[in-house]
Amino acid sequence: MSRMVQFVGGARGEWRVVQQRSLAGAALPAVERVALLRGDTPRPDGGAWSLRGIGSYDRYLHTTERTALRARQAALGRPQASCAALIPIRKRAQWWQLTQEERREIIEPRSGHVRIGLEYLPQVARELLHCHDLGEQEPFDFLTWFEFAPEHESAFDRLLQALRATPEWDYVERDVELRLRRERSA
Amino acid sequence: MSRMVQFVGGARGEWRVVQQRSLAGAALPAVERVALLRGDTPRPDGGAWSLRGIGSYDRYLHTTERTALRARQAALGRPQASCAALIPIRKRAQWWQLTQEERREIIEPRSGHVRIGLEYLPQVARELLHCHDLGEQEPFDFLTWFEFAPEHESAFDRLLQALRATPEWDYVERDVELRLRRERSA
Repeated sequence: MSRMVQFVGGARGEWRVVQQRSLAGAALPAVERVALLRGDTPRPDGGAWSLRGIGSYDRYLHTTERTALRARQAALGRPQASCAALIPIRKRAQWWQLTQEERREIIEPRSGHVRIGLEYLPQVARELLHCHDLGEQEPFDFLTWFEFAPEHESAFDRLLQALRATPEWDYVERDVELRLRRERSA
Repeated sequence: MSRMVQFVGGARGEWRVVQQRSLAGAALPAVERVALLRGDTPRPDGGAWSLRGIGSYDRYLHTTERTALRARQAALGRPQASCAALIPIRKRAQWWQLTQEERREIIEPRSGHVRIGLEYLPQVARELLHCHDLGEQEPFDFLTWFEFAPEHESAFDRLLQALRATPEWDYVERDVELRLRRERSA
């Protein structure tokens, strides 16, 4: 699997946008569909916007946490997981000035980011993509992609609500949410 | 200061190459000079190679360590610091599969990376640039740039030797070294 992933918002793509909103900071232009492209390719023609992120190494997981996550997590692309969400976020400059141990302290002991995520496995599959170090002009720091079956949508709503209520989220200055359905275009 | 830095090896640039060698893995084509360009600009014409990296946030420092480093570190660009070294390295895939706590254990308690660096401050100024998450095709994971005065060159030699003798360096699969002198081209 390629480390680089590009989400192109426009009139094309397998994922139809059913809801698009901004919870903090500037919105993204509204689009009908999102195409998910894997690989380090140039931005395709057309599309209102394109967001790129790269899969990277674990920054905060302790070894026991990673073992627990891996034991429960689901793969992307499950046929029944026809619902998806794309959550691009940007964190405040202050976040990036914290030390590793300060960020870890916020993410897990204080916010329970890992514990919250574990509760929704394997129903919700997740891929975290990093943008902060792709370049200086990136509009977001992280893109998180989630896939789940329609019957788990309300569980996913609770997951998002729980994450947004954490102390970690005090550092989020831009928070955009797209909800999508897998649906081939005509 | 721009987060993105580009080193262009060729016939131009303020830094004249006095020695260039590969300690592990493939060498870089030999060049006469290196130009250091700040900012997210396209690769300029000419030049045998171009290496890009981005300044990022601290991954491993504990808060007390960062305070100690900041209290002693020197700025880049000191007039007397006419010697420089560029050390591009690539770490094994195995390194990136470790968890954060496993990598930290290797870097500091076992390798003393921070303690070694502290011994050579403020004589040796240092800038660490990250390449691993710039894209999938990057030839190196890190570029480290050092600046020091000619009278501190032997201290710098000892610093490099000490770092290369650490357990952390067992994970380095490509290690290139360029020694340079600041010298305007004719």
